[in-house]
Amino acid sequence: MEQSPRSDTRGAKARVALFGVTGYTGLELIEILLRHPSVELTYLASRREELPVVSDIFPRLRGRCDARTAPIDLDAVAEAADVALLALPHLVSKQHVPELLERGLTVLDLSADYRLKDASVYERYYGEPHTDAGNLAQAVYGLPELYGDELRGARLVAVPGCYPTAAILAAAPLVCSDWPVVEEVTVDAKTGVSGGGRSPKLAFHFPEANESVKPYNVGIHRHQPEMEAVLSDVGDRTVAVDFVPHLVPMDRGILATVYVHLDEEVGEADIQARFEKFYAGQPFVRVRPLGDCPATKDVAYTNYCDIGLKALWSRDGRTKVTVMSAIDNLLKGASGQAVEDMNLVLGFPRTAGLV
Amino acid sequence: MEQSPRSDTRGAKARVALFGVTGYTGLELIEILLRHPSVELTYLASRREELPVVSDIFPRLRGRCDARTAPIDLDAVAEAADVALLALPHLVSKQHVPELLERGLTVLDLSADYRLKDASVYERYYGEPHTDAGNLAQAVYGLPELYGDELRGARLVAVPGCYPTAAILAAAPLVCSDWPVVEEVTVDAKTGVSGGGRSPKLAFHFPEANESVKPYNVGIHRHQPEMEAVLSDVGDRTVAVDFVPHLVPMDRGILATVYVHLDEEVGEADIQARFEKFYAGQPFVRVRPLGDCPATKDVAYTNYCDIGLKALWSRDGRTKVTVMSAIDNLLKGASGQAVEDMNLVLGFPRTAGLV
Amino acid sequence: MEQSPRSDTRGAKARVALFGVTGYTGLELIEILLRHPSVELTYLASRREELPVVSDIFPRLRGRCDARTAPIDLDAVAEAADVALLALPHLVSKQHVPELLERGLTVLDLSADYRLKDASVYERYYGEPHTDAGNLAQAVYGLPELYGDELRGARLVAVPGCYPTAAILAAAPLVCSDWPVVEEVTVDAKTGVSGGGRSPKLAFHFPEANESVKPYNVGIHRHQPEMEAVLSDVGDRTVAVDFVPHLVPMDRGILATVYVHLDEEVGEADIQARFEKFYAGQPFVRVRPLGDCPATKDVAYTNYCDIGLKALWSRDGRTKVTVMSAIDNLLKGASGQAVEDMNLVLGFPRTAGLV
Amino acid sequence: MEQSPRSDTRGAKARVALFGVTGYTGLELIEILLRHPSVELTYLASRREELPVVSDIFPRLRGRCDARTAPIDLDAVAEAADVALLALPHLVSKQHVPELLERGLTVLDLSADYRLKDASVYERYYGEPHTDAGNLAQAVYGLPELYGDELRGARLVAVPGCYPTAAILAAAPLVCSDWPVVEEVTVDAKTGVSGGGRSPKLAFHFPEANESVKPYNVGIHRHQPEMEAVLSDVGDRTVAVDFVPHLVPMDRGILATVYVHLDEEVGEADIQARFEKFYAGQPFVRVRPLGDCPATKDVAYTNYCDIGLKALWSRDGRTKVTVMSAIDNLLKGASGQAVEDMNLVLGFPRTAGLV
Repeated sequence: MEQSPRSDTRGAKARVALFGVTGYTGLELIEILLRHPSVELTYLASRREELPVVSDIFPRLRGRCDARTAPIDLDAVAEAADVALLALPHLVSKQHVPELLERGLTVLDLSADYRLKDASVYERYYGEPHTDAGNLAQAVYGLPELYGDELRGARLVAVPGCYPTAAILAAAPLVCSDWPVVEEVTVDAKTGVSGGGRSPKLAFHFPEANESVKPYNVGIHRHQPEMEAVLSDVGDRTVAVDFVPHLVPMDRGILATVYVHLDEEVGEADIQARFEKFYAGQPFVRVRPLGDCPATKDVAYTNYCDIGLKALWSRDGRTKVTVMSAIDNLLKGASGQAVEDMNLVLGFPRTAGLV
Repeated sequence: MEQSPRSDTRGAKARVALFGVTGYTGLELIEILLRHPSVELTYLASRREELPVVSDIFPRLRGRCDARTAPIDLDAVAEAADVALLALPHLVSKQHVPELLERGLTVLDLSADYRLKDASVYERYYGEPHTDAGNLAQAVYGLPELYGDELRGARLVAVPGCYPTAAILAAAPLVCSDWPVVEEVTVDAKTGVSGGGRSPKLAFHFPEANESVKPYNVGIHRHQPEMEAVLSDVGDRTVAVDFVPHLVPMDRGILATVYVHLDEEVGEADIQARFEKFYAGQPFVRVRPLGDCPATKDVAYTNYCDIGLKALWSRDGRTKVTVMSAIDNLLKGASGQAVEDMNLVLGFPRTAGLV
Repeated sequence: MEQSPRSDTRGAKARVALFGVTGYTGLELIEILLRHPSVELTYLASRREELPVVSDIFPRLRGRCDARTAPIDLDAVAEAADVALLALPHLVSKQHVPELLERGLTVLDLSADYRLKDASVYERYYGEPHTDAGNLAQAVYGLPELYGDELRGARLVAVPGCYPTAAILAAAPLVCSDWPVVEEVTVDAKTGVSGGGRSPKLAFHFPEANESVKPYNVGIHRHQPEMEAVLSDVGDRTVAVDFVPHLVPMDRGILATVYVHLDEEVGEADIQARFEKFYAGQPFVRVRPLGDCPATKDVAYTNYCDIGLKALWSRDGRTKVTVMSAIDNLLKGASGQAVEDMNLVLGFPRTAGLV
Repeated sequence: MEQSPRSDTRGAKARVALFGVTGYTGLELIEILLRHPSVELTYLASRREELPVVSDIFPRLRGRCDARTAPIDLDAVAEAADVALLALPHLVSKQHVPELLERGLTVLDLSADYRLKDASVYERYYGEPHTDAGNLAQAVYGLPELYGDELRGARLVAVPGCYPTAAILAAAPLVCSDWPVVEEVTVDAKTGVSGGGRSPKLAFHFPEANESVKPYNVGIHRHQPEMEAVLSDVGDRTVAVDFVPHLVPMDRGILATVYVHLDEEVGEADIQARFEKFYAGQPFVRVRPLGDCPATKDVAYTNYCDIGLKALWSRDGRTKVTVMSAIDNLLKGASGQAVEDMNLVLGFPRTAGLV
């Protein structure tokens, strides 16, 4: 019989293994877990042969996390930890998830490997067949504002992508409303460069990315099907998303400007009220007063998602709304949300380690 | 009888007066005019009482333009110059334009004062009645790609706004096409901070604007009616524009991401061909190969407008296109375009001083 | 009889009043105090007539600190709080400090008003006579690594300036050593723009400060006499400092590159050992391994000071050393250090609220 | 008999071959040469096997330089060109220089290969023996303000490094003066990231370099012996330089803060006068008024070097001076200076193509 992950965490700290410590999401996870009151970081797994010392990679952790990483030895991990946080690249995560689950661990995967329920879409966008259909089916999409109930006690969580988090939180109150939403949602998003990861590439080379705004992967970005799948699921209708991402010269932050048509004339105050009600009680979504636009700086280095909206017009039986959402791509868009998910899974206070 | 401005410039350099030398567009105009082969900068007018030395304001001009500015004395200006370039604030330009025209000068106005043909729209957006209806009627909108013929020999040119330049150049080939364009054009634009001018304000204070993306003036920006008026004029149909500007942490550059629906299924290659044909022979518009996205860095410190496009989809008798255009907001979006206009007006080579 | 500030904080949270909530140090203090386990923020005082709501000024605090500020009413403050943190401008602090002390509060002043023991130097650099000589004499300079003993139980703390913190921590181990230090210390420092405060000024206007490095106040900066006074005090010899500050296009961080001559040939390893010993047990100073240079990014958003050093040469009976120190100017350089001081004063763990 | 390079350029444009077109100095050379009135770019040589089209690498050149590059075929180069500009890496340049000279071309080399007259120093810093001693001896160091006479008619020019240009121009008026200069010059320099080249590396990855200042290669940077050699040569005494470079988050620009001791009490006005006289008539050095500090932004995108100075103190028979110089590292620090050198070599106006 599998052990219950929650039984281990009563009265004691949850023991967490972290896979992937050399990227930005790994760094952020370490920073959060070091100050999380109910968690102990017991295993730091690296895929690198030389097994680096964490603070040699990230000098900002010196004196706070000077451990040498250990190899990916799943038995050792199972011995040391109850929960596994996977900050691994796409395609790599799914090599380890089945065995981690088998060994009784709760798994929170920050890669895309368990986000898309439709394996054929996964294969089309990630170039490999998905080989773990069983776990794919049980994975919970880790957006707490929409899937909070499913997350409690989940065994496998697919932590959402950064762009989908921002876009879905902006669009969901409309897509889930009684108003007739035109099925085409346009997402014009702007991201900081840390969203591209820590591997040096020309596009992210400072003199190339600095002082420039550039659209990229227009209409073909991997986060587009993720947005469509989740919005269609929660909206209970087919929602098509047109997604145009842009690279912006800043470290972190995503601003999603989302355009939605309603097939009805709706007042701005009603829309605002809809958003406030939809997110009432959610600790990390802040709906701004009408007319107030969020800046990414308002949420940088926090787990918040700030949302502002404006009805551009309402006429001839239709309404055009723009919703603007801002998150920190590494926190609410990745590592912060992973810990928020973990808190829900393990029954900790939702905000533990995050405020 | 009024003197012809062109008669003065045959066989000699055109004598240019510059009004407004303490802002960024003034600086850029000086930089361009100093290297323009057919122009002499003969009058630098300042509204400031202390009449600053130009290179004290802009140390980068030291040794190149060390003149003390002169007061706004229109008779002296008329004596010294054939052409007046007005880098003045809105509402201020129109105080001087009539008298400059009366004195026989050719006027290129970089403010918004002569851009909107409909004086009531002007009053609504700029808060004052327009008091110079006669000149407003004869003013030519200085977008050379669309109004090149009218510009030749014009007496008063309204140099376009930065956002409208980027947005109109992106949308015009579709709006002017035979394809049935849905009348709602969405313009999601991103600007560098120099677009906000040189007066210190909290929004443009470095620690506020840096490391942040922020939408502002959503649905109420003054450049929206300008886009609508021009696109409606050239498209010969009513075009409504939804305009959402964003402030981005960089010095200069505008990236306009424009979304247009066509009421017909059109192939991407046909759209690409349409753009290439539309801008054939235009020296400052570069249509990028299909699938190639422009970055603002590609056009920074130049007068170019780079355009890339993508058909997001074509189905059910409709097509959704996104067109991305990049300009330097201070050059093609202001001072460079003003000189390009001047070149056309005076019969100089279109690119003089600009490459 | 004056009440003891420490008696109030046993078994209960210390009640803290904050003066000055509209600047960056005020914001950082609020952020730290909100997560400090032993502190309650009971009074938010503003000098502004309209008494702003804190989260209207700083949207990032929305949902976390939505209180309206109160006027500066010292009796009300004394009723509500045991400790006053003053994030006020120079010259303003000293108007309130005497009365706060009289009312029994412990005062931590982030301005320069109580940093310079020599009132004539204060007057020369700040343009006003110092009118509170008695309290000036008892004020403790809040650099815990050097004045930790004096801080325990202090009534009035002068929290150091940002530049002095970085420079003094870099130079002190040499100045306090047995090695004969040539009395001229050169401090070439680079600061992020938040060091200039939150009031918009041309020098800090984004398009001016961005993409530029600029020295300023060379040889006349107010932090120079502060460095000289403290280094002379702790080194027990007269130390002259040549200070050249530079503005660098980033939000936060100071990198001080300090050049010191020793009148003796000393090996690099000995110097390194000296630094490691000097800062042994100090929770917020991290001496980097020999040859390792600190970056401001390594300490951004933390209270750490990272120090690296290099002996440039040792010959002819002399040694030239460069010491590089990095801090976050708003944390270890201001608000973090103020809380670190407060922790020492009140007997809290030194790192409370800060890690 | 070798042909005279100057005989080819009378009455016709000089034909220039450019080696190395995929880096930032190559791009800048193309930009300058395209607007140079007396030069024709006749050969674009690439070391890359696929022989890229220039405007595919740099979209900003589209429509201005769309040529496909050619292989490094020295006979073809000699046929096509009179002058070779080498924007190649260190160690690579010296493989081609001898053969280019043999074929009668004038060579301007932007690498370090011919900068250090002492081959043993070259070997120590660049890790390879210098194999071209003969040409090394005849190479002229391309700093026009110091070696203008030698440059006229030179056959081989070693274009200076970016840091040395800034530092030497700051220090030379003192080192070459009659004042007794203490032999230790301290150079604390700050560079934009383009100085690190165009190859992606972690140190130059946007999220690493942005929002950070970092010293690097302290006391071991390759530009240090170059500064020492040139200052010793022009000062006719041995000058030791302590050089601490810092990486700063901006595209381009170097600010060198240079500290020099004089063994005499000298008034600030005398020093200022010395600088003004030293650079009188030099078109690209601008000595700022006393007390005025240069910012890198004042010279960005220009070939100027702006210099400001301040006597920090004068006492006990000594004076300490700080001199601050600002250049654009890619222009006066590389490509602009190379063209300035070429203008001198070929007898063109010194500023041709550069203003």
